[in-house]
Amino acid sequence: MQINKHFLELKDSYLFSTIAKKAAAHVEAHPDAKVLRLGIGDVTRPLVPVVVDAMTAAVAEMGQAATFRGYGPEQGYPFLREALQKYYEGKGVKLAADEIFMGDGAKSDIGNILDLFDKNNNVIIPDPVYPAYLDANIMAGRNVYFVDGNEENGFLPMPESLVQQGINPDLIYICSPNNPTGSVYTRSQLKVWVDYATYCGAIILFDAAYECFITDPDLPTSIFEIPGARRCAIEIASLSKVAGFTGVRCGYTIVPHELEFDGGNINKMWNRRQTTKFNGVSYIVQRGAEAVFTKEGMAQCMESVGAYLANAKIIAQTMKELNIWHVGGDNAPYIWLKCPNNMTSWDFFDFLLAKAHVVGTPGAGFGAKGEGYFRLSAFNSKENVEEAMHRIKGIL
Amino acid sequence: MQINKHFLELKDSYLFSTIAKKAAAHVEAHPDAKVLRLGIGDVTRPLVPVVVDAMTAAVAEMGQAATFRGYGPEQGYPFLREALQKYYEGKGVKLAADEIFMGDGAKSDIGNILDLFDKNNNVIIPDPVYPAYLDANIMAGRNVYFVDGNEENGFLPMPESLVQQGINPDLIYICSPNNPTGSVYTRSQLKVWVDYATYCGAIILFDAAYECFITDPDLPTSIFEIPGARRCAIEIASLSKVAGFTGVRCGYTIVPHELEFDGGNINKMWNRRQTTKFNGVSYIVQRGAEAVFTKEGMAQCMESVGAYLANAKIIAQTMKELNIWHVGGDNAPYIWLKCPNNMTSWDFFDFLLAKAHVVGTPGAGFGAKGEGYFRLSAFNSKENVEEAMHRIKGIL
Repeated sequence: MQINKHFLELKDSYLFSTIAKKAAAHVEAHPDAKVLRLGIGDVTRPLVPVVVDAMTAAVAEMGQAATFRGYGPEQGYPFLREALQKYYEGKGVKLAADEIFMGDGAKSDIGNILDLFDKNNNVIIPDPVYPAYLDANIMAGRNVYFVDGNEENGFLPMPESLVQQGINPDLIYICSPNNPTGSVYTRSQLKVWVDYATYCGAIILFDAAYECFITDPDLPTSIFEIPGARRCAIEIASLSKVAGFTGVRCGYTIVPHELEFDGGNINKMWNRRQTTKFNGVSYIVQRGAEAVFTKEGMAQCMESVGAYLANAKIIAQTMKELNIWHVGGDNAPYIWLKCPNNMTSWDFFDFLLAKAHVVGTPGAGFGAKGEGYFRLSAFNSKENVEEAMHRIKGIL
Repeated sequence: MQINKHFLELKDSYLFSTIAKKAAAHVEAHPDAKVLRLGIGDVTRPLVPVVVDAMTAAVAEMGQAATFRGYGPEQGYPFLREALQKYYEGKGVKLAADEIFMGDGAKSDIGNILDLFDKNNNVIIPDPVYPAYLDANIMAGRNVYFVDGNEENGFLPMPESLVQQGINPDLIYICSPNNPTGSVYTRSQLKVWVDYATYCGAIILFDAAYECFITDPDLPTSIFEIPGARRCAIEIASLSKVAGFTGVRCGYTIVPHELEFDGGNINKMWNRRQTTKFNGVSYIVQRGAEAVFTKEGMAQCMESVGAYLANAKIIAQTMKELNIWHVGGDNAPYIWLKCPNNMTSWDFFDFLLAKAHVVGTPGAGFGAKGEGYFRLSAFNSKENVEEAMHRIKGIL
């Protein structure tokens, strides 16, 4: 038996385990210090009441013979796909129900969608970005090229460098709002990417996991707001951030009918992939997700999102006051800052932990171009965020 | 962009959609007939009370800030992995907690585990069997060889034909109790497979989704009851049948530490695959699953399993009385019968529907060697099963 040798090319990632170990050692050394954690990309606020009610009712249904449900449609129940259709209508985006595929989370779909594509494709990945894109493609043995984020482009790389290097892209990852930088592409920037992908015959894999944080009405929350995107883009999104579903597990992937490439219809291929290797999202979870997209559910969820955004504003304001270069925080739960005094990412991590008992995330963990930068997250209580900023002001 | 061309080699499967269409047409033509469905492999009894209680409590926890949980371990919570350790201890199988990976269902894991293996592997698949094995391997472009079930071997194929043909196997699928035939391998038969796989350097992918139906204490419910299996087997199982989780979604995959192949440790590789392309099972579902493996939960679940087995006995007894050749039904929810009067699978389907208003599953839908056979399922109420058997007796 031959293993998939590309697994041996993967680099071990110790980012979050190293953070956890360093934080634990610090807690042990300073038992009286209150360590404040602005390090992880996980929500902290509980599920909203309408979601709890919907899931409680669904669990009860499953306990009665008359209302019990077994296998559901692999693609998701019509009630949920239709709720998402309406959600997208609110963005001015018209989708057919069978273009929406419910899944157990964006991370699964982002990895699994790669089943549809040949190994011999050139993959474009932003640097810095969510590390799972890179690992999923290394596993599959694909050529990866990076587009660099930096201060000049505000960590919103554009296709120029690819054109200059003569790289022919096949799959292009875009994450907007970006994790870890919190930067958001404008409509005109995304239009450049869509035109470029169309010209090259490439597919954009658009990660919209953080779309709910966009409050600026001029910024696009879906790639499908951009003309031409239906012929070159797949959108992957999630209820993890909008509704705190990180532990509940529900996401969705939008695959337009128009995506015809190389003799295959991508929508039909994804449908076949999912009906073969997936058996649908938990009915209980789907009822919770349906509740998110009701008027009441959305109002309750946006209250949580608003609380995180208020935290982000506090962090961004502090960076401004301290004259620390940063992006993000306006339409995203992350603030991406340049480490003061030319510290490396890990030096600043150690400094912040030692001096302020604050945990953040070293930018180097998100790619080579993240070195010298640092991510602070708004996922915490207002009190903790204010206290953390107070301490940071005290040491910088 | 180049698509994965192997998708174009997949044959469309119309098995269950054709069944549904024919049944719907029949209902329309005979509005007064009570159509009895013994066709699908889906459970019909509701979740048991301890599971409902556990999931209701978990939903409530998620609605409170103090008890809310975000991202959990991709591999499953320790409380559930430990519950499964104990479940396997009851089978006499000792497992380390990190050999157990919780997933969202056997279908996902059966497909996704293939990420670990090179395309150039020879895959052995029983015929007839659950169709997802074949499709997942066609998608990946692998060579597939079949081992044939038939009356002589009681639909429990052994390695001989592979040896005779000089085929060198790399991945060997075994499904026991088998879907669709309900046949169960004995300990000595599985020992032959384990020794054969070990000799060939192959991995057995053991699908134990129906293990809970085995009541005969002499029959193995896990491949790891067989000496040597820890060096050549992966077991994939599910809560779908034992606890009616088909709509709840929870399964697990057991990957022993000893699996070292071709420079890779399979346990570490699967861990890396799952941490990259999966984000864990819903916390709510995991709490429900934990409840299944309590003493009370198992007692409640086995009452449901017992009810299905009682139905299976009624069906098998009817086949015996009618002198119809069959297997299964003793330690499985399926009865696999030879179509009377040399009818084809679909002829018998049409005959049964027209004359008895009973829906079953044509054996041909599970592989070429299923032609001329038919699956009846015990997943229904006792009353419906008795009524169906009464009608079948009346027409045969």
